[in-house]
Amino acid sequence: MKKISDSSTTKSSSQKTRYVYNFGEQTDGNASMRELLGGKGANLAEMAAIGLPVPPGFTVSTDVCTYFYAHGRSYPKTLAKDVEVAVKSVAKQMKREFGGRDNPLLVSVRSGARDSMPGMMDTILNLGLNDETVEGLASISDNPRFAWDCYRRFIQMYGDVVMGVQALNEESECPFHALLDNMKTSLGKELDNELTAEELQELVQRYKKLIADKTGKSFPQDVYEQLWGAVGAVFGSWKNDRAILYRSQYGIPAEWGTAVNIQAMVFGNAGDDSGTGVAFTRDPATGEKVFYGEYLTNAQGEDVVAGVRTPKPIAAMAKELPKNFTDLEKVRTRLEKHFKDMQDFEFTIENGRLFILQTRNGKRTGLAAIRIAVELNKEKLIDQKTALLKIPAESVDTLLVPVFDAKAQKEAKLICTGLPAGPGAATGRIAFTAAQAEIEARKGNKVILCRSETSPDDLKGMLHSQGILTTRGGVSSHAALVARQLGKVCICGAADITINYERKTLTANGITLKEGDYISINGTTGSVYQGLIESADSEVKRVLEGTMKASESYTYELFNTVMEWSDKYRKLRIRTNADTPAMAQTAVAYGAEGIGLCRTEHMFFEGSRIDDMRQMILAVDGVQRREALKKLLPMQRKDFVGLFKAMAGRPVTIRLLDPPLHEFLPQDDAVRRQLADKLGLPLEFVIDRIKALHEENPMLGCRGCRLGILYPEITEMQVQAIFEAAAELLTAKKPVEVHPEIMIPLVGFKAELADQLAIVHRIAEQVMTRKKIKFKYMVGTMVEVPRAAITADEIAEHAEFFSFGTNDLTQTTLGLSRDDMGLFYDEYQQKEIYSKNPFASLDKTGVGKLMQFAVTNGQKTRKDLKLGICGEHAGDPDSIDFCHNLGLQYVSCSPPRVPIARLAAAQAALRAAK
Amino acid sequence: MKKISDSSTTKSSSQKTRYVYNFGEQTDGNASMRELLGGKGANLAEMAAIGLPVPPGFTVSTDVCTYFYAHGRSYPKTLAKDVEVAVKSVAKQMKREFGGRDNPLLVSVRSGARDSMPGMMDTILNLGLNDETVEGLASISDNPRFAWDCYRRFIQMYGDVVMGVQALNEESECPFHALLDNMKTSLGKELDNELTAEELQELVQRYKKLIADKTGKSFPQDVYEQLWGAVGAVFGSWKNDRAILYRSQYGIPAEWGTAVNIQAMVFGNAGDDSGTGVAFTRDPATGEKVFYGEYLTNAQGEDVVAGVRTPKPIAAMAKELPKNFTDLEKVRTRLEKHFKDMQDFEFTIENGRLFILQTRNGKRTGLAAIRIAVELNKEKLIDQKTALLKIPAESVDTLLVPVFDAKAQKEAKLICTGLPAGPGAATGRIAFTAAQAEIEARKGNKVILCRSETSPDDLKGMLHSQGILTTRGGVSSHAALVARQLGKVCICGAADITINYERKTLTANGITLKEGDYISINGTTGSVYQGLIESADSEVKRVLEGTMKASESYTYELFNTVMEWSDKYRKLRIRTNADTPAMAQTAVAYGAEGIGLCRTEHMFFEGSRIDDMRQMILAVDGVQRREALKKLLPMQRKDFVGLFKAMAGRPVTIRLLDPPLHEFLPQDDAVRRQLADKLGLPLEFVIDRIKALHEENPMLGCRGCRLGILYPEITEMQVQAIFEAAAELLTAKKPVEVHPEIMIPLVGFKAELADQLAIVHRIAEQVMTRKKIKFKYMVGTMVEVPRAAITADEIAEHAEFFSFGTNDLTQTTLGLSRDDMGLFYDEYQQKEIYSKNPFASLDKTGVGKLMQFAVTNGQKTRKDLKLGICGEHAGDPDSIDFCHNLGLQYVSCSPPRVPIARLAAAQAALRAAK
Repeated sequence: MKKISDSSTTKSSSQKTRYVYNFGEQTDGNASMRELLGGKGANLAEMAAIGLPVPPGFTVSTDVCTYFYAHGRSYPKTLAKDVEVAVKSVAKQMKREFGGRDNPLLVSVRSGARDSMPGMMDTILNLGLNDETVEGLASISDNPRFAWDCYRRFIQMYGDVVMGVQALNEESECPFHALLDNMKTSLGKELDNELTAEELQELVQRYKKLIADKTGKSFPQDVYEQLWGAVGAVFGSWKNDRAILYRSQYGIPAEWGTAVNIQAMVFGNAGDDSGTGVAFTRDPATGEKVFYGEYLTNAQGEDVVAGVRTPKPIAAMAKELPKNFTDLEKVRTRLEKHFKDMQDFEFTIENGRLFILQTRNGKRTGLAAIRIAVELNKEKLIDQKTALLKIPAESVDTLLVPVFDAKAQKEAKLICTGLPAGPGAATGRIAFTAAQAEIEARKGNKVILCRSETSPDDLKGMLHSQGILTTRGGVSSHAALVARQLGKVCICGAADITINYERKTLTANGITLKEGDYISINGTTGSVYQGLIESADSEVKRVLEGTMKASESYTYELFNTVMEWSDKYRKLRIRTNADTPAMAQTAVAYGAEGIGLCRTEHMFFEGSRIDDMRQMILAVDGVQRREALKKLLPMQRKDFVGLFKAMAGRPVTIRLLDPPLHEFLPQDDAVRRQLADKLGLPLEFVIDRIKALHEENPMLGCRGCRLGILYPEITEMQVQAIFEAAAELLTAKKPVEVHPEIMIPLVGFKAELADQLAIVHRIAEQVMTRKKIKFKYMVGTMVEVPRAAITADEIAEHAEFFSFGTNDLTQTTLGLSRDDMGLFYDEYQQKEIYSKNPFASLDKTGVGKLMQFAVTNGQKTRKDLKLGICGEHAGDPDSIDFCHNLGLQYVSCSPPRVPIARLAAAQAALRAAK
Repeated sequence: MKKISDSSTTKSSSQKTRYVYNFGEQTDGNASMRELLGGKGANLAEMAAIGLPVPPGFTVSTDVCTYFYAHGRSYPKTLAKDVEVAVKSVAKQMKREFGGRDNPLLVSVRSGARDSMPGMMDTILNLGLNDETVEGLASISDNPRFAWDCYRRFIQMYGDVVMGVQALNEESECPFHALLDNMKTSLGKELDNELTAEELQELVQRYKKLIADKTGKSFPQDVYEQLWGAVGAVFGSWKNDRAILYRSQYGIPAEWGTAVNIQAMVFGNAGDDSGTGVAFTRDPATGEKVFYGEYLTNAQGEDVVAGVRTPKPIAAMAKELPKNFTDLEKVRTRLEKHFKDMQDFEFTIENGRLFILQTRNGKRTGLAAIRIAVELNKEKLIDQKTALLKIPAESVDTLLVPVFDAKAQKEAKLICTGLPAGPGAATGRIAFTAAQAEIEARKGNKVILCRSETSPDDLKGMLHSQGILTTRGGVSSHAALVARQLGKVCICGAADITINYERKTLTANGITLKEGDYISINGTTGSVYQGLIESADSEVKRVLEGTMKASESYTYELFNTVMEWSDKYRKLRIRTNADTPAMAQTAVAYGAEGIGLCRTEHMFFEGSRIDDMRQMILAVDGVQRREALKKLLPMQRKDFVGLFKAMAGRPVTIRLLDPPLHEFLPQDDAVRRQLADKLGLPLEFVIDRIKALHEENPMLGCRGCRLGILYPEITEMQVQAIFEAAAELLTAKKPVEVHPEIMIPLVGFKAELADQLAIVHRIAEQVMTRKKIKFKYMVGTMVEVPRAAITADEIAEHAEFFSFGTNDLTQTTLGLSRDDMGLFYDEYQQKEIYSKNPFASLDKTGVGKLMQFAVTNGQKTRKDLKLGICGEHAGDPDSIDFCHNLGLQYVSCSPPRVPIARLAAAQAALRAAK
């Protein structure tokens, strides 16, 4: 019966643009045509083509959506005719008539974008019913109650979605529901299905009156008018608020548009031998290979979703509808074999006959994504490459972050929610200052640092905390950045919370907590809970740290499999951004092959060092400065010894001092006074110096190599520490291989690099002579201001490597301060001005073009120029893909993102090879 | 006798790089070879070639300087031999022998860069004297006193310059001078020339001992050792501190290097029929065509310069040395005819015989530059194009700025000096706050606003002041920028001054002045004076303003001539940056052809508007905001009516609101309280809102189009005001032509522009419908962040014009805050990392490349894209040249720079045509 449309039938339409694609007896599309037909339409066509029982229908392509928005919400001229032909074909296949009184064809009208956007756009069911056809339906089904129930459902849906009754209503309750409830109450009935046909008929009258009252228009009786109303509503829903928000969250371009699927209705509510359900070929939460789903007898699909009746688990069908269950299991197997992925499909049983209404690759948790991919490979359904491409790289994270005990979390008191900024779960005592966090931590307590926002001053406190909670700032705020860098759990912008620093309390939604009280935060969901919830390390982490056997953890096996495959296919090297031996060790355990960014400034905050650092900054001349630096030298050397040891011969890129010096100085009057006392300086002098160092735009001020040029003695001390550490390890009893790469920050002019280079080489010579040893090292620069990229040919004369500092490069290229974008970012997101947050995912059109320019021109000057990236983007899979194609040699991300980067790098290589 | 070296003699040297170029009987160079021979060397060759009496010599080329610094201060292998040959040739021409006992040749060794750098590098005279040759000189001159005086001068110079005796000396007094003074004192003699030959011989011994004591080396007796010592010192002096500073001030690249000129000595101190002098072919101060200069008999050149004896005016020579004076006048005429420019030349008369030692285009004041160029054209020595190219475009400014009465200034008490940041002269009462400045101004008093630094808050006070004096900040500080924009006199960074805001005093060098006291500042020189000095408008300004007749002012005639010529040859249109009708009128008088940048924010500071503006900013929602904006609308409309009228049909580019809103809010607690009272808001609310608007890096924060996107109602109000003003004028009884060009600031994404564009078009439609009139307008964007330049192809889809905002584009491209660079800029200047201040002169390699990219790609999308520049650079001649070559259609600078820009644009066109 089924046939794929042959060339002769499509010939005429190939002359003009084809807008309508049939499925059913004749099928024009297939699964590969997602761009044109949307995911749903393409899969309906595919299922029809392979003989699965799909109700016939047709798809209006995404091209029409594009046309619709480009032409003031109108349609191509030929569309009306094409749709009519397609409707007639569907009617013929169903042996019914659209708008026919005796044997009416009803259809559903659904959206379907390239990627599924569940629930975001509009759907209309039972379309084709009017005051006449409802009678026909009553008579052929021999079930007037069913017919009138369909009609009243249709009017309600149509009234809402197409005619906007709910939108016009100022109360939040749905006015259709209100009418339904009124009727039930006045009749003393509880459930919808207790209403009789006559009562439903009365309800239909009330619904129609409601529509007329609210909109001034009557509910349309012409079935084609109904159809075009529905099609317009679905296309229109592509730009509703929810859809826009969803797209901005999932990075779906507005240009894609949606298709519209029009399909013959089948009825799960035609009697007790009917039913409807949703099923997954495997468990979408855990990935386990079990048949998973739920169904309802004598119901339409919306009933399953709406939760009016509680659906039964799919397994129950084996007893209740055994024949259909056997058929369904066959469909399950067939679908997975055919689509080679876990499927999420909808079915309807109409009077004992099974129909499949939709199938798609099922949404799944990160864990499930990994398990399914690995197991599909084990089952030989897909190869390793395909398996890797099926796992969203981010999902690896779900195997690594600490988790709350699910039961404990459910029982805990939710205070409010904020932005999930650092995944994982953390519990601890509230500390409102960095100092307090440290005190608690030293007592052995777990701490959650709660601040309106954080600053570099708070770094130590953050290091000592389990998690960070802020009331201001977004997922790109200082708190979030540092938290992710440190692998800390973090929630940002929990705006409901008010912190009173004086009284040392935080208040949200009527709950007030004091300093020292327990609080728990789930950085994966953004939820903040009162009290303590126990959390634990992930199994993977425990195996990597040796506190659990690999053989005992299936999660670890999954992780390990994915990582091994990734390493096999990726071309990019994965480095990490780490400042301490501990961070370096974690990163190596996660698979880091080197350090791409060691921020030396973090080393100056520890213990008493900050005092020496401050003395250095407050020095009035080079002599005083050198004196303070002399005290810092042995500490820096020790840092580097530790780091080199932890990296055991892997390359280590060390960035010289970068932040503006005032970041190291205390903002607090009391601390300033202490500092003045400690250094034996007048308080006024200290205050004046701090004032003198104040900058209007510190981001663009005296930082980076400008510091090293202004105070060469700082550069001297730092490189001396690096080279002496190298010498120490190379000449140790058990020598350790060392590959230092010295990175000069914020270079924009080749003369800047030349100036610092001269110091580096001079000190290297001195140390080698003094220690009587030779060692190799590299010197390069961070490319983080546009001028560095633009003049890459000149800068490569002096630089042996470029490392793209895409955080600052994004700030300068876009003229956009990461810390200050909060004021307008919501509005920008709403208006879809940035397709993605440019600090989370590389702005390829802007920043990316500069990078491309730098790569091309840098390599013209120096063929063997080493290229990497160390900005936050280096941990973002989409950006990693871009870096692969750009020809970088490595990406360097924070330790917890190393496994993600390994997978993303493999995926990039696999995609590029395609 | 003289001959130009023919090809046969240079053939051998053309095989290898030629380093030595002779002049004299054989001359290898000419005036066009400045790059290779330096200005002095090239002109010596030219003079020799045209038969002027030049002592023979040779030039070691700038290539050697380049080699010298590239090879650790060593020389090309072949140089020693070439120099020896050249020395021998000079000796032969002079019929003397270098190092010969009987008839010794003495030479001078002088620097000579492409552009003259007077006094910056080292010179050695009388080289070739030693214990033997001094006797020879004594005998052939028959004047032992003369010989020994030459020798002691030589030792002193050599000891200082080559052997570094003075540098080693810790006292500031020259130790050679000390010995000389000692001897005179012990002998009871007053003048140098009272010392006898024997006494000078004794002095020579003491000099040699001093050198040996200080340096541990003896004064060299080998004449070639002397020569190489001197050559090395001259090359070395290219990188002394003075030379580096001079280059950075005058924008001379370090790569040019210097040449070294070695020339036979002739002696102006050989007796009373000898002498030496410096002359100008015209007056270098006024440009008047008079013979100008001074001379001394029986003296060496250094005596004229050193001021030990007071030289006589050149006219006196007519009586004292009449024959030589006649010769000299002939030389004067010959030189000017030949070099076709005012010459500054040195001469020496040795026993009645005239020698010309050097000639160069004379340095001159701006006024002189213009007068000389115009008069040389009148005299038919040069054509208009050549004349235009001879005037440094900046010099036009000297015709325009107000001036102090010269006598009054001389008599006034100089307090200290700062950086000359806004040229001109201003006198007024001291005001320490913007508010006080306004109060004084309203009383009708002239005011000098004295601040440690200024902020946008101070704008009104600056507008009311005659001049601005700051103790901090450089020539690119806020004060300097605004002052130049407003045409105000300004001195910045007068670091000797301490301001005590509490006591309302300023103190410098022991002088304390109170608020209300008179102070005078000369913004051209940076001098600060106590008390009142009268100043007056320039003649040009008075003519342009109609308070003086054009025919009465020769200065105006000069100005007008230069401007007429400029307009004839330039291709660039000249617009102005003006925010008020008064500024616009001034600019039009100066020749502006349109407004390229009207900053609407300045309009919001006037009178009570700031309160409405603040109310708008503090609004909690769109409703409140619209209410406040409603009050601002009529004021804005009035502003635009005034501006359009003043521009009388010329195009007017209006930039929508740009600065971060917190710039409009008061920083001062008292003012905040007043504001809260006035608006009926709780003080806490006001403080909180101000806190909420605080930004870490306001430069990169919520400003530019981000404001208009966040608060569309601001854009609506502004464009409504613009279009209503246009409609009003077009429909007035006497209609005024109007060409508004609306500029959206800080665009980086085309979606930003599209968003604002929609508002502009919508409001335009509304106004046109309401006013029943059609008008044309343009909408474009400022290109001021790198991303705008990089995605110019996309942005040009929506923009009808690009205006390069190079101030911000420089800040973002370089990652460099103009306000904060003071901390390290001195060091950068010292190390020559920036070839010029990138905010004063366009960074062509970096920012320029982005501009090029934007032009090319913008025009690809939109062929008729209008292109201009409105950053500060638009008033910088060098940057104007770049803009011409880039193919921009206009530059827009501050009103006082319009004439400069006209000339610079003409020069750019003329240079490009070459």
